[in-house]
Amino acid sequence: MPYHSTPLDLAFHALSDPTRRAVISRLADGEIPVSVLAEPFDMALPSFAQHLKVLEDCGLIASEKRGRSRWCRLVQSRFDEAADWMQAERRRAAGRLDRLEAYLDKTDKEDRRGDND
Amino acid sequence: MPYHSTPLDLAFHALSDPTRRAVISRLADGEIPVSVLAEPFDMALPSFAQHLKVLEDCGLIASEKRGRSRWCRLVQSRFDEAADWMQAERRRAAGRLDRLEAYLDKTDKEDRRGDND
Repeated sequence: MPYHSTPLDLAFHALSDPTRRAVISRLADGEIPVSVLAEPFDMALPSFAQHLKVLEDCGLIASEKRGRSRWCRLVQSRFDEAADWMQAERRRAAGRLDRLEAYLDKTDKEDRRGDND
Repeated sequence: MPYHSTPLDLAFHALSDPTRRAVISRLADGEIPVSVLAEPFDMALPSFAQHLKVLEDCGLIASEKRGRSRWCRLVQSRFDEAADWMQAERRRAAGRLDRLEAYLDKTDKEDRRGDND
């Protein structure tokens, strides 16, 4: 059975490129026309459009035509799914270290109590 | 000039696969031998080893031989680089929404003050 990529797979793949991460950063500040979004990037427009397509296909950004311009915006909910996954794993690892520290504190106190007996 | 992938590019690429994310989740609970780590995955060992190689090459996990077993652990600092990037962008987007809300509150109050004049 072929594996179908999940939204999370596609989101992390989209974030694995510096141009696409820079687009996300720019759109986190607010929606802007594609022409303005493209300006700082030293890249042919078709290549830039390809990056936008990857971001839009995975749902991290959305765009709409307004008059003669196409405007792009960040889709916060999709971005948050990926950010939530990272945050949950970070907390899980931090929780493990806290438990380890508590255990070492406890055994340390027990050792010292043992010494005083 | 060819583009050389950055650690962040490679980390997000590594996280774009569900098996590799599951490995990260498992290692967030603590280090374990590869043989134990591999158990829950319905996958040939060479395929699983390839996933571990991607994670180890980008620095998200590290492994070492102890006696006859190879043990794997999460490299928290590399994971945190990626998590920090996500968190910074989330805060940036949230800050924009806060500013927008404050602006709308302000104009709303000004409108009401205008109504009372």
